[in-house]
Formats: sequence, C-alpha cells, structure tokens
Amino acid sequence: MAVNLEPPKPDSLLPVAGVELGFAAAGIRKANRRDLMLMRFSPGTRVAGVFTQNSFAAAPVLVCRQHLGAGKGIRAVVVNAGNANCGTGRRGLDAAAATCAAAARLIQCAPDEVLPFSTGVILEHLPVDKIEAALPACVASLGALHWPEAAAAIMTTDTVAKGRSAQATIGGRAVTVTGIAKGVGMLQPNMATMLAFIATDATIDQTALDTMVRQVADASFNRVTVDGDTSTNDSFVLIATGAAENAEIALDSKEYAAVLDAVRSVAVQLAQCIARDGEGATKFITVRVDGGADDGEVLRVARSIANSPLVKTAFFASDPNLGRLLMAIGNAGVPNLDTSRVNLWLGDVQVIDHGGRSETYREEDGARVMKPEEITVRVNLGRGSFATTVWTCDYSYDYVKINAEYRT
Amino acid sequence: MAVNLEPPKPDSLLPVAGVELGFAAAGIRKANRRDLMLMRFSPGTRVAGVFTQNSFAAAPVLVCRQHLGAGKGIRAVVVNAGNANCGTGRRGLDAAAATCAAAARLIQCAPDEVLPFSTGVILEHLPVDKIEAALPACVASLGALHWPEAAAAIMTTDTVAKGRSAQATIGGRAVTVTGIAKGVGMLQPNMATMLAFIATDATIDQTALDTMVRQVADASFNRVTVDGDTSTNDSFVLIATGAAENAEIALDSKEYAAVLDAVRSVAVQLAQCIARDGEGATKFITVRVDGGADDGEVLRVARSIANSPLVKTAFFASDPNLGRLLMAIGNAGVPNLDTSRVNLWLGDVQVIDHGGRSETYREEDGARVMKPEEITVRVNLGRGSFATTVWTCDYSYDYVKINAEYRT
Repeated sequence: MAVNLEPPKPDSLLPVAGVELGFAAAGIRKANRRDLMLMRFSPGTRVAGVFTQNSFAAAPVLVCRQHLGAGKGIRAVVVNAGNANCGTGRRGLDAAAATCAAAARLIQCAPDEVLPFSTGVILEHLPVDKIEAALPACVASLGALHWPEAAAAIMTTDTVAKGRSAQATIGGRAVTVTGIAKGVGMLQPNMATMLAFIATDATIDQTALDTMVRQVADASFNRVTVDGDTSTNDSFVLIATGAAENAEIALDSKEYAAVLDAVRSVAVQLAQCIARDGEGATKFITVRVDGGADDGEVLRVARSIANSPLVKTAFFASDPNLGRLLMAIGNAGVPNLDTSRVNLWLGDVQVIDHGGRSETYREEDGARVMKPEEITVRVNLGRGSFATTVWTCDYSYDYVKINAEYRT
Repeated sequence: MAVNLEPPKPDSLLPVAGVELGFAAAGIRKANRRDLMLMRFSPGTRVAGVFTQNSFAAAPVLVCRQHLGAGKGIRAVVVNAGNANCGTGRRGLDAAAATCAAAARLIQCAPDEVLPFSTGVILEHLPVDKIEAALPACVASLGALHWPEAAAAIMTTDTVAKGRSAQATIGGRAVTVTGIAKGVGMLQPNMATMLAFIATDATIDQTALDTMVRQVADASFNRVTVDGDTSTNDSFVLIATGAAENAEIALDSKEYAAVLDAVRSVAVQLAQCIARDGEGATKFITVRVDGGADDGEVLRVARSIANSPLVKTAFFASDPNLGRLLMAIGNAGVPNLDTSRVNLWLGDVQVIDHGGRSETYREEDGARVMKPEEITVRVNLGRGSFATTVWTCDYSYDYVKINAEYRT
C-alpha cells in the first residue's frame, strides 16, 4: 500500500566506517521473522539522541536517556520489534537493563555503553529471555553491509523497509551518512519520532552532535504526521563514529553545515518514506504553509490540515470537498487570523482566494488535482514571511483495518 | 448505526409556550427531503447564543453575532441543511441577509430580528432562491407540536433526529425546556457546537441568559467529540420566551439554579445523542478523568483519549489494546505528570495501576469489558480534585465511508 516507495536497493545504502549491523529472529511477537537488531560502533563513537515527549516514555527510552546522560561512549544499540516495553513499570526497566547487560557481555563493553530500543505493543511485558537467547546470533551476523536487513528487522506495521544514504566532502575528504527508520502509525512526532538511526563516519564534537540531532529532527521527523498520536517510544539517534578521521567538527563551522546538510537530507527522505508508508496510505500529501507571522503558527496550520480526519478521508476519496481544508485552517488557533488574506492552492489550482471560494475554481479542476497519488496543498496566510512543510498521507479503510486488527 | 439511540417519541417533546416550528423541503442539496426549518417566537422572547471558534466562521454565524449584538428582540430562527454557506465571501453574507429578509417579510418583523443558520457542505454558494421559494410553506406549517419534524429537518449525516425535554418548578409554577440538536461529524466543539436550539418558556433576565448559555455549553456540547475537528458553523442558541410569566429570573438566584439544571439536563442528553450518532459509531464511550490539578488538564486528558484514532479503532475492534490509552494520556501535555500516580479502569477492570500494567489485569477481563456497546474509561491522575467527563464514539470503517462519500 505504500505510495511510490520501494525498499532501498542493497547497494544504495552505503556502509559507514565504524558501524556493523546484525539481526536475528527472536520470536518476540511473531515466529520466523527477524525482529532483533544490533548495531556495533567502533571505540570513540559519539552518539546524540532525541526522544518522545509522551509522559509515559517507555522503559528503554528512560534507560537511553540515563546512558546518554552518563557521558561515557556508546558502543552498541539493540532494537527489538513486536513489544514496546512501555507501561511495564519496574519489570520493564529491569528488562531493558538485562538487554543491555546481555549485549554488553557479548561485545565486551559496559552495560551503560549500550542503548536499548523497543517498538510494538504497549502495556505487555517484554520477553527478555527471548532477546537474551537470540543476541548471540545477532552478534554472529554483524557486518558493515547489513543496513537493509537492519531496516527490515525494526519494522512493525511498516510495509516497506526504509533506508537512505548521502555523502558530503569535508576538507577534501568524503564522509558518509546512512540512516534507517521505522514507524508508520501512532505518529505525530514532537522533538523526535518513531525509531530512526542515522550514522556517519565524520568526527563531530559532542556539543555539535547534540545540536545537530535537534536541528535535523525539527526539519524532518517533526514535520511528518500520520494520525496525530505521539508514540511512547519515539527515538531518533545520530551516531558519529569518527572513522573518517577528519579534524573534529565544531558547531557553526563550514564543515558543520556540510555534514548537517547531508544528515538532514537523509532524515528528510526517511521522514517522507514514513508518510508514504503511513498505515493504510493510498496518497502522499505535502502541506506547505507560508506567509505566517511566526514558526509556531505555520506549523499549527500545517498540522491541523495534515491531521484532520475529514481532510484525510476526502483525499482518500479523491473528492475535492475542499471546504474541509478551510475548516482545518480555521481550527489551527492562529490568533486574530484575517481570513480575507488567506489563499490556498491544490497543486496548480487556486481554491481559496482571499478567504473565499476562488471565482476561477471549477469542480473539475479540483477533481483533476485530487486524483494523483501525490498531492501538494499550499496555503498562504498573508501575515508574514514564515513557512514550513509537513508530509502526511490519507485516511483509508485500511487505516481502520490495520489498527482494529493490529494485535491479531 | 447510532448506539442505543431512538428518535424522540412525538409526545416526549413538550411544547414550549411562545415557540412554533415549521418545516419545508427546499431542495437545497437533495430532492424530497425536509431541509428548511423555521422557529417563531412570541414578542419579548430573549435569546443568547455561543458560536464556533473556527477562524472561518460561516456567513450565518457572522450575521447571528451581528443580530444578537444589536440588542433588539429575536422573533425567529431559520435553519437550512445541505449547505453551510461558509467560505462564500460577500455573496454568502448577502445570502444570509436575504434569508432573514424573506423570513421577516413573512412573519412581519425586522430582518435583524431573525437569526440564520446553515449546515452542510462548505465552500459552495447557498441557493438562496430555493430558500426564499420554500419559506412560505415553512411558515404555513408553523405549529407548537412540530419539534420532532424540526429536529429531522436540520439533520445532515445524522441517522437519528435528536430532541429532549425537561421541566422545572419555579415558585410553584412549571416551566418547560425543550431542545433539538444535529451534528455528528466535524465535531469537537469549543465554546459551542454544531447546531442546537433549546427553548424554555421561563422568563429570564438577559444577563442571566447570556451566562446560562455558556455554562450549559461548557457542561454539555463542549464535552462531546467525534473527530476533533471543529465545524465552521457550530452554534448553540438558548431561547427564553417568558410565556410562563414567572417573575424574571436573575443570575445567581435559586430560580436560576433550577432552570439551569433543567436546561443543562436537556443539553447533556442532546450532547450524548450526538456522540451516540457519531459518524459510523458502533460504540458509545464515556471518558471520565478525575484527580486533576485543574479544569484544563482533566479536559485535555479526556479529549486526548476521546480523539485518538488509535484508541477509537481499538474500541471499534473490541480489542483491549489498552496501551493506546496510556499513550493518549501521556500525549495530553499535562506538565510534570508523575505517571506513577496514574490509575485507569475500563468499566470495573483496573488496567493501569500506578502508571504500569495492573498485576491483577487479565486479557480476558479486558476483552469482556471492551465488548458492550457502552464503555466507560476512568482515569485518575493523582494530582488533585478536578474532574470532567467527555463523551465520544469509536472509529469504524463507516466513518471513513461516510466521509469519503459525503458529497456523492
């Protein structure tokens, strides 16, 4: 069902010096599928992350924050699909700690040098014994080329594995950026999203890396939404192995900008992959809002459109019931919005002209631009110069089906 | 599809002295259905209203605000279904004014003593000629007993007409309250909702009436949600004809409390009718949140649960995928929520105990309480003594179907 989205071709995901990936079938929720993934990093690797803002942050998120906060290096991440280890109290924290300990024994590091991640059903206890049993196979399979297998092992309701690479040149030296992501529902990230792991071999100062992970999240995963729900397990981790042996990159340097561009490019592509593979998606929708008085209001308007069930069902039906777009703009809580300055285009067709139905708008033009699998909505608020873009998908019968039958 | 909801029995809707109702088939969107309704009030009737907070308030809402603001009496309301007259600019305002003028000519009052209301598709021009042509039939049919027909004439995607009555005794004198409402989608009211008209024959001071309409909206229509979208046309109007000839009721009197109780009772029942008839509804869900530190946070938590597409699809499936409830609580933006103090019950089954899965919770108990058509979720935040209740429905295939095919 994904909209114009293919799994990454194996040779399109470039290896990142200092990163190896392994996978195994642990049988956490379903038999005979790879549901466990381990990434191992070379010594000296720096890691920064952003995590869910949901008050019920899952046990692995709490452990990640603690391990990253300890300020030691990170040597591995372990990810399981099928169970979110959330709402599981003390026992959940113990399970996440046991996962780290088991991985640490196998790759010979300290437990707090391992970051744990879980994704799947909430409020069920993690079968940590299955993870411990499968970790040796995971470690045995470690290899630098296993990005596609790693992308597949972290999927839940995803229908297509998601990975992208980019390269940048720093002081004449090529550095590589490769990332993978999962997550196609319970999805309106805020500060971070779903699970995404992006690694580069560039050497980056820790302060610069901490800033970069937030800048990139804000421009990519925080700009995608499927259903307006924010998962308890959202995590985005940026890994810099330093294996490229470039001079350490500091914040606000020319080199920082070059690496930021490459990382952001990978992240934006992954974010778009997520909307294209949104649960039940039949359309990929780009919502562009400009002419805003500040950053906050353009994002609120874009999300109000992108999350409206009524707008999304109209896209599914290819029905130019475009009054719903106007309703969604009006609901965004923009203070003192002068609706007579608002214009809206669907593709190349102007629908709303100065707050009302455009005199040039014809139903057949609306029908024409609603048909394709990829549709762009553009709103101008007529209040200033701020702009943003949000990516989303439509609401189909299959969204209901997937979520009604998720656990069966 | 409505959940345990029948149309009001004809004799269950009590006439209100000073109110007559008429109806006609104007052919606004569909042929051969009654889609025009007029209520006429006796001289001296007082009216108060609350209206949508959507920035794109529809033309009739703008005209209502103007006519109510003029401070003259109100002698009639005219309601059409099938077209919202919203996003229609100057031409829409002219159409609403023409509707008032036509009704005023027929019932011999001033145009600004008429309130216009429209509900239906947004961004299409109102065929005001059809309304003008049908108004004489509407007036000819005026009668005190026509509440059921009036409730049916204002329906859009409603499957069941909605009306309720109550009586109160004031100084030994019986006063009557009867109300009707419509609106089953694009529905998360804020300050007011959909279309609802409640009339009483009590004599109420204008200041008291203005306060009462807000208090009642806040306790009823503002506590129901179907999809989190707020319509451009939401309006709730409270009418006091004074025909009971009681001593004028002032704010904060004993009599005020008695009438408030009766009006609120009718409004809460109508609000519940709306959730029971929510688009595609197969379940009626009551979300009770208590233990909050203030009014705002209990409402945010209740709405976060009631609006989550993932929670709503789980209810549709009768699937106790109850981690989604935890996710929704965590997304409500309650500052510094100590999740270890949060408890949650589904019916009589405790699901979350101090922020984690209850040790006593069994999947089969969850399955049992998810089965019925009426389900209560109760959350205690463990932070204070504020509480609220929100009513909603589930998300089914039919929600998508109804909204994908709305205009066909």
